[in-house]
Amino acid sequence: GTMDVGVRHVKNGSLGSNTSEISGNNTTSKLIIRGNEELGNGLSAGFYLDATILGDTGQAGAATPAGQLWDRRSTVSVASKTLGELRLGRDWVPTHLVWTSMDPFSTLGIAGANSFRNFAASRALGQAFGALPDAQQANPTLRVSNAIEYFLPSGLGGFYGQLVVTLDERGTTAAGSTKGRGFRLGWAGKGLDVGAAQFTTSNATGGENFKDQVYGAGYDFGFARLSLAQRRWVFGPDRSVNTLLAAQIPAGPGFVKLTYLRLDQKGATAAQSANDAHLIGAGYVYNLSKRTALYAHASRISNDGAASFAVAGGPAVSGNPAAANYFGGQRSTAYELGLRHDF
Amino acid sequence: GTMDVGVRHVKNGSLGSNTSEISGNNTTSKLIIRGNEELGNGLSAGFYLDATILGDTGQAGAATPAGQLWDRRSTVSVASKTLGELRLGRDWVPTHLVWTSMDPFSTLGIAGANSFRNFAASRALGQAFGALPDAQQANPTLRVSNAIEYFLPSGLGGFYGQLVVTLDERGTTAAGSTKGRGFRLGWAGKGLDVGAAQFTTSNATGGENFKDQVYGAGYDFGFARLSLAQRRWVFGPDRSVNTLLAAQIPAGPGFVKLTYLRLDQKGATAAQSANDAHLIGAGYVYNLSKRTALYAHASRISNDGAASFAVAGGPAVSGNPAAANYFGGQRSTAYELGLRHDF
Amino acid sequence: GTMDVGVRHVKNGSLGSNTSEISGNNTTSKLIIRGNEELGNGLSAGFYLDATILGDTGQAGAATPAGQLWDRRSTVSVASKTLGELRLGRDWVPTHLVWTSMDPFSTLGIAGANSFRNFAASRALGQAFGALPDAQQANPTLRVSNAIEYFLPSGLGGFYGQLVVTLDERGTTAAGSTKGRGFRLGWAGKGLDVGAAQFTTSNATGGENFKDQVYGAGYDFGFARLSLAQRRWVFGPDRSVNTLLAAQIPAGPGFVKLTYLRLDQKGATAAQSANDAHLIGAGYVYNLSKRTALYAHASRISNDGAASFAVAGGPAVSGNPAAANYFGGQRSTAYELGLRHDF
Repeated sequence: GTMDVGVRHVKNGSLGSNTSEISGNNTTSKLIIRGNEELGNGLSAGFYLDATILGDTGQAGAATPAGQLWDRRSTVSVASKTLGELRLGRDWVPTHLVWTSMDPFSTLGIAGANSFRNFAASRALGQAFGALPDAQQANPTLRVSNAIEYFLPSGLGGFYGQLVVTLDERGTTAAGSTKGRGFRLGWAGKGLDVGAAQFTTSNATGGENFKDQVYGAGYDFGFARLSLAQRRWVFGPDRSVNTLLAAQIPAGPGFVKLTYLRLDQKGATAAQSANDAHLIGAGYVYNLSKRTALYAHASRISNDGAASFAVAGGPAVSGNPAAANYFGGQRSTAYELGLRHDF
Repeated sequence: GTMDVGVRHVKNGSLGSNTSEISGNNTTSKLIIRGNEELGNGLSAGFYLDATILGDTGQAGAATPAGQLWDRRSTVSVASKTLGELRLGRDWVPTHLVWTSMDPFSTLGIAGANSFRNFAASRALGQAFGALPDAQQANPTLRVSNAIEYFLPSGLGGFYGQLVVTLDERGTTAAGSTKGRGFRLGWAGKGLDVGAAQFTTSNATGGENFKDQVYGAGYDFGFARLSLAQRRWVFGPDRSVNTLLAAQIPAGPGFVKLTYLRLDQKGATAAQSANDAHLIGAGYVYNLSKRTALYAHASRISNDGAASFAVAGGPAVSGNPAAANYFGGQRSTAYELGLRHDF
Repeated sequence: GTMDVGVRHVKNGSLGSNTSEISGNNTTSKLIIRGNEELGNGLSAGFYLDATILGDTGQAGAATPAGQLWDRRSTVSVASKTLGELRLGRDWVPTHLVWTSMDPFSTLGIAGANSFRNFAASRALGQAFGALPDAQQANPTLRVSNAIEYFLPSGLGGFYGQLVVTLDERGTTAAGSTKGRGFRLGWAGKGLDVGAAQFTTSNATGGENFKDQVYGAGYDFGFARLSLAQRRWVFGPDRSVNTLLAAQIPAGPGFVKLTYLRLDQKGATAAQSANDAHLIGAGYVYNLSKRTALYAHASRISNDGAASFAVAGGPAVSGNPAAANYFGGQRSTAYELGLRHDF
């Protein structure tokens, strides 16, 4: 597992600033219990339980639904060295796996590549999954329950891949259910990693299919690892397209991380299509050991049009022009310092 | 602990069918933390914490009451080799221990002997504990909180037994409290296991005593273990009597399981007394190792009169003739496939 | 961790008595996961996760807020042998650490020194934090979230100390947030332990500062350890002052514990100032081993004026003269027996 707690300061334009203690900026704070059993003949069985910890308050698991302790992963699987792995339970969606592998910030903290994964401000996500907590929990851009997964075996010359189907069990997204299907395919070797994935949800609010697509490539030049990736959320006329350009540069007993993330949105109207945003971020991770590190991150989100994205932890913002805390077109600036310890 | 996840398909008569991913069909998915300390002079102390896991979604513990993580068992005890064991906390009720020992399906999955343990459709349970989640949680046909238990020592020539008292703490069943008392007594040896148990609840809804009684016998003939048991739930004029005839037959690297379960209900009116049902079930467990198995189960529930029992996981059913999904007298057919891994 | 479950009987004056099963009377039932890593050069890193268990029902963590599993402690830290320790997360407040170190009952059970820590009956606490569960959870007389702490290193000739700041993150106490600052300072050696601490909350309900102050001394005379301590809760014109005189006396394979706790209250009116109370308590802990013990406690709370303090676990009491269960000025008498097992 991991315990990672930091202190974050966020200034949201004219709305002022706030300082808070936040968990999981460098690595998600979590408790993992897992195991593996060799069955002979190249077969093995395994289980994996993974629970988020909010180290600042002691909360564990998901807030919604209540009681979902093993919110990150809860799986049982049987694997063959030649035929691949069959896995059942709750797991990451394939699109997230490709996306986070291209982000030196691992989609975490103030400069992570999920900074525009926001139900209120991203058109495609908001239209597909609405404002209800249960429906937002069903949004499978991170993790999904009731999954049946197949993974390719290793030893295919660097190719990796998976298929996934999830059951809605006659439930709706409003009730936290996801009817989905997707895949991931990639190749890794010689410093290069290229991957693509898609996950399609059929019971999103409103009846349309929600499509989550990602592709990207990373290459390790030795002095730095550069990565370029794009993730698209599509629902009816709405789309939110994240483009990531990032670098991780070894420096002293750690490394420097740089990121540029751009969001292009398209909606039914020109005003909706103007709600773009971008983020620039930088960080340094100072390794005290393999397991323990100090880190410092800085980032800034700039909104176009009426876009109202902000770094989490600042004063609450609204995308509604009539609200007192309307934030459209403003900038959110943040830095954070913290301590991460793996166990 | 255990992780057990399977895929289940249920067809509920005219209401259609549903496919879902379900946890704990062969063995309950759970996390156990326990320990024992030798104190000398034949004395020992121990603790036992046992939490349900819903492997398909990552939920842990009970849904009601919220926060009851160690919902299966939470006990501390001191034991003497000659005098027996004193145990305090939350534990199984004695009636369940006898009942599940007679069921090759361990009361789990689509063919388990608790298939008629249903508050809406079983008269005695429904009348005693009503429809409130807290009261249903207080229903002690499975587990009970605030228990003070005494267990006979081993080494009594095969006899085993226990006494249990539970405190309601001035609470009502509607608030999740149980005032109960019960016992278990049996003998095991030479392939035979006979047992009987009773647990009586004094603060059930409506003021009457709720009685849970079970007795049964199992014998291992070598080619098969056969068992015959009966469990009676009695509350005022209402009674629900479960009769179980089951067999477990070694076959190849596993065993075949067969079960026949019949429910006889008696209520204040002839119509209520006609609401009987029966279940037939079969399964095969294929052991990949001592810890890991694949399993396949099939079962069918047939309802008489207006009885509306159904295998869990299918379309929702109602016992109300005015409801659109009225299910009285129909059949529920199911099969499931899954993977179980102990750790 | 620990499992500690006992049976308690409480008689609340004219309101009658109640028997219940209660967890954590000698030592809090809990599950701890922690670790430490040597980093070299006298540096180390560590984490600490600590979750309450209610052994009688299987509940884990805090009831409010829901999902706060690691309610007792959730921290990550980096420490230097010469410079001290920096710690982030949820932790004990410094005042509690001094207070509990002076109490042979460790503030637990029917005779613990927190018996007058009651929101309904203590004026200062009630006025500062009100009746909302979230605000009461924010009351930092026990533990506090979002803490940034500095601890003095050991090796300062017996001196120990800490500084703590907690962030409210723009939240109010009503929403469970605490804006606080405090310290602890003491000296221990040669059988003597003297300590003082203060924790001030700036966003308590009503806008005033809430002050929690404690000082005390304990000395081990060999035949007994005696301690004398005082804890003051101050909010505007209201103050609740706890004075503790206690002894722990080795006797046979365990020890006797004696306590006298007095509460002096002062409010805006003479009637409020008359609501004092005191508790006398005694107990014996019989050690079966280093890890396991049986214990028996007895105590009595006597109320003056309209004070309505009672031992937890009895019939519900009210401080409202118009209520049917008005308890002002009455006595609460209790005893408890239990089993504690550390693991």
